[in-house]
Amino acid sequence: MILGVMIIPPLPTPFDSKGYLDSEAFRALAQAVEPHVDGLLFYGSNGEGVHLSKDERRAGLAAQSPTKPVWVGLMEETLAQAQVALEEAAALGARSLVTPPRYYESQLGTEGFLNYYRTLAETGKGEIWLYHVPQNTKVQLPLPVIAELSKHPGITGIKDSSGDLARMAFYASQKLSLELYTGSAPNFLGALALGAKGGIMAVANLAPKPYKMLLSAWQAGKIAEAQALQNRLEPFGRGLAAGGVVLLKQALRHLGLPGGYPRPPYGAESPAWASFKPILEEFRAEGWTVA
Amino acid sequence: MILGVMIIPPLPTPFDSKGYLDSEAFRALAQAVEPHVDGLLFYGSNGEGVHLSKDERRAGLAAQSPTKPVWVGLMEETLAQAQVALEEAAALGARSLVTPPRYYESQLGTEGFLNYYRTLAETGKGEIWLYHVPQNTKVQLPLPVIAELSKHPGITGIKDSSGDLARMAFYASQKLSLELYTGSAPNFLGALALGAKGGIMAVANLAPKPYKMLLSAWQAGKIAEAQALQNRLEPFGRGLAAGGVVLLKQALRHLGLPGGYPRPPYGAESPAWASFKPILEEFRAEGWTVA
Amino acid sequence: MILGVMIIPPLPTPFDSKGYLDSEAFRALAQAVEPHVDGLLFYGSNGEGVHLSKDERRAGLAAQSPTKPVWVGLMEETLAQAQVALEEAAALGARSLVTPPRYYESQLGTEGFLNYYRTLAETGKGEIWLYHVPQNTKVQLPLPVIAELSKHPGITGIKDSSGDLARMAFYASQKLSLELYTGSAPNFLGALALGAKGGIMAVANLAPKPYKMLLSAWQAGKIAEAQALQNRLEPFGRGLAAGGVVLLKQALRHLGLPGGYPRPPYGAESPAWASFKPILEEFRAEGWTVA
Amino acid sequence: MILGVMIIPPLPTPFDSKGYLDSEAFRALAQAVEPHVDGLLFYGSNGEGVHLSKDERRAGLAAQSPTKPVWVGLMEETLAQAQVALEEAAALGARSLVTPPRYYESQLGTEGFLNYYRTLAETGKGEIWLYHVPQNTKVQLPLPVIAELSKHPGITGIKDSSGDLARMAFYASQKLSLELYTGSAPNFLGALALGAKGGIMAVANLAPKPYKMLLSAWQAGKIAEAQALQNRLEPFGRGLAAGGVVLLKQALRHLGLPGGYPRPPYGAESPAWASFKPILEEFRAEGWTVA
Repeated sequence: MILGVMIIPPLPTPFDSKGYLDSEAFRALAQAVEPHVDGLLFYGSNGEGVHLSKDERRAGLAAQSPTKPVWVGLMEETLAQAQVALEEAAALGARSLVTPPRYYESQLGTEGFLNYYRTLAETGKGEIWLYHVPQNTKVQLPLPVIAELSKHPGITGIKDSSGDLARMAFYASQKLSLELYTGSAPNFLGALALGAKGGIMAVANLAPKPYKMLLSAWQAGKIAEAQALQNRLEPFGRGLAAGGVVLLKQALRHLGLPGGYPRPPYGAESPAWASFKPILEEFRAEGWTVA
Repeated sequence: MILGVMIIPPLPTPFDSKGYLDSEAFRALAQAVEPHVDGLLFYGSNGEGVHLSKDERRAGLAAQSPTKPVWVGLMEETLAQAQVALEEAAALGARSLVTPPRYYESQLGTEGFLNYYRTLAETGKGEIWLYHVPQNTKVQLPLPVIAELSKHPGITGIKDSSGDLARMAFYASQKLSLELYTGSAPNFLGALALGAKGGIMAVANLAPKPYKMLLSAWQAGKIAEAQALQNRLEPFGRGLAAGGVVLLKQALRHLGLPGGYPRPPYGAESPAWASFKPILEEFRAEGWTVA
Repeated sequence: MILGVMIIPPLPTPFDSKGYLDSEAFRALAQAVEPHVDGLLFYGSNGEGVHLSKDERRAGLAAQSPTKPVWVGLMEETLAQAQVALEEAAALGARSLVTPPRYYESQLGTEGFLNYYRTLAETGKGEIWLYHVPQNTKVQLPLPVIAELSKHPGITGIKDSSGDLARMAFYASQKLSLELYTGSAPNFLGALALGAKGGIMAVANLAPKPYKMLLSAWQAGKIAEAQALQNRLEPFGRGLAAGGVVLLKQALRHLGLPGGYPRPPYGAESPAWASFKPILEEFRAEGWTVA
Repeated sequence: MILGVMIIPPLPTPFDSKGYLDSEAFRALAQAVEPHVDGLLFYGSNGEGVHLSKDERRAGLAAQSPTKPVWVGLMEETLAQAQVALEEAAALGARSLVTPPRYYESQLGTEGFLNYYRTLAETGKGEIWLYHVPQNTKVQLPLPVIAELSKHPGITGIKDSSGDLARMAFYASQKLSLELYTGSAPNFLGALALGAKGGIMAVANLAPKPYKMLLSAWQAGKIAEAQALQNRLEPFGRGLAAGGVVLLKQALRHLGLPGGYPRPPYGAESPAWASFKPILEEFRAEGWTVA
């Protein structure tokens, strides 16, 4: 299936100030953001899915009723664990965005990588997307493994959050049968030029609008306009990446959105807030933020 | 409390050939190994604790009835998850061997590290030991953080599996109030010389005897004898480290012990087996193996 | 000064089969390549400048009489050594492309970086360009250091060979007063989209033509054409990068050009040749190669 | 030849405050330190050999007239460059301590490593020692390469400065025909236990005495005494390693020795001085320093 979607946020998962999952806030946040974007990713790189018990993970998804395309991050270590998570995602009609096993990854080998993704794809529980996010997983998905997996009909996309655009160039030149999405905002226009169809990026929780403008300009061949936006947006993407989910939630709260708090021991406030706040304010003044 | 124990295996967790937890084999393995060692670590660096559901983890521990000192590995991402695991370990009378949060570690900061360990220590549910195993967690526990945490009365030991003996030298020179254990077999005698009291090492599942001999020789001041053993044992430790838990289980099965299989997608056989098998056979011929 | 140049090769430095500098071949190679490109870089990332004695380095430059813009790579460890190299470059009317000191780099600090580049710039011996090539130097030039250095009137450009296009995005968004060039062929179009003006790339020794076509298409707003070329060229750039200067020289010899041999202990043949040769042949058949 | 030497300093190379080589200070420093140690290393990890022109390097050695065993560091990139340096070392009757080529190291391959060292060994210009110092060279000398090279009669020793004592354990267990020396002071006793014969360590420029005491205690089987010294010395070794040659020279000047200054752009003062100075003072009060 070819998607028309393009700018998607990895939605954070709100906890209350004591560290309990706040499913109501989670639903409210999704509903506040969804109208501004082209789809939603739950439990992605900024979604703290790995911070949830199995029951919480299910409860969080059960609170959602999205109308646009949906992805669910799946960051398990083994097939037995992944199959549980896969069924939950399928129940929501979502694609699963799957990171590789990581704790014993040095023992996985090419066969282990292939076996993991193929077995999940063969369950037929929704499409499988590859999720390359080495800054969190500390695992590299090798390019030949990705090329091999792309031949499987059940594996249909990739989100590459590494920001390493030589990888994007490889995916495109090999004409892999994968939807190509970047997870890296600071060099977004580079990813588009190299063949990405859009972005699944933390910035889209706060200010999807200018990224959609950039994408539209690019698609319309207005290169100078796209480059001007790219230059304008770069500090915003770089600043948010430096602070991660702690900063993202702080920024959402600042905008009056129900972003909640990170789960302890992660703290409520980011050391990157002081430098990020003025850019966020500037974007709000432009009418670019969600709220 | 000062422990008298010294050579402890991180017991593997047996799965059957279909990937189901085999609690009976787990109990049988523990009972087969325990007489040869000074204590047991469940769910440690070779214990695949991160491959278990919460229910499985509990069931695996419930099958055990050790009589020697026990540790349980705790490799969670947040305090909420860790507290569940901590209670299970406490129910077994075990010390908890705790790795730091890892997925969003870049956002944790010194305060996050301190908060995580101190909060667990303050629950009073058994002793907390620090567990530094960067080859799996990909996280570095900073030395000043360890020095700070060692001041807490509830934090009483460390297993350092990095093999970086400059760290061991630091722990000893600072006279930290921590029991010092290495997890690295290939340079075991170096760790002892630098102040480690013993080893919690995968090799102790297969052949604890010569490591105890080395330790005894060292403690008796028989340096030449200890060095001769160190040289003899080095290829064994290095070989097993290269293959990890996949190789360890294959070796246990080869010895006729109920080591079971790794959980898929991890495979049953290790590429390192061919070079490890002759050393294992040689150790068996010496009467050094558990079976 | 704003340059009009865009596609520039880092020319290899030919040695004969016994390892002696072959200045005649060096001159002949430069003369064979220069008509196809917009300028020349001597002693750059593929130029083995660090393999030359001071006398050889001078002799190699003395053999040249380029008519297009010229750069000379300067990869010294201290100011005393750099000043000698700087004078030689200035004598040729070249810009100096300067890597940071590397052997004791951990002791350099921000002040050391700034001091190094500023002192060179203040000699007034030609323009200084920053040269970021961490795959060879193993040193990261920090972004804030680059931003600071860009304020100096004598520091006028940067070649970034890291392929990390988040860096390119930063340079462009900060509107640094630097000519921006990429040294990474595999994601060349991404670099252009993010603000690079052109490329100083090893591929330009062999086949500058299609890269100039890509650049022209991009500048004319023919995005689809540029992307089609990017996809076609990606395996060529990736393949050459995998083999480095050893492969580059082997490819030049294959084309009948006087590329010579690497300096021993580097070998004459690259393990990457077998997979690179068919792409090179294909490019020759297209009429894309220099010879 | 089996050496009787054991504690050797990598002597720094003094520059005056303007950055000129100060050969007189170099000679005076060597003469001040030599009586306290078992030999001298010129142009080693703290010797700034890579900061010298060929003429300076020769002049620096020509100023020396050591009476104890001598090593000269050789940190070149190719055989042609290395052979020049090798002759200079041989003229002094020195062993050459040789780091691997580093700038294009990814293209070197096993054959290149072997070729480099064997070719130098076969010149017959003095013994060749392997020099593994990845913190500076950023190159790993693979263990199988070292094992292979150790079979060559002209290659007779290794200085391993990595501090990775699993490497030392490997050298010893394989009974390689190499003199084993560590370059890492903080875990010195661990290196001895694992088979090192002594240390070629920066600390030996400042305070060789307590390291000789530690070594004597170890050799006499006085383990408790050796461990007490190890614990006492660890902060000194760790502190000096943190500051490197900049700190070493500052410390020498503080002791009134002709250590001179680093070569610019390296600065005269280290950020690590404030924390190192009290330990140095304490060692001076003990009568442990050279002056």
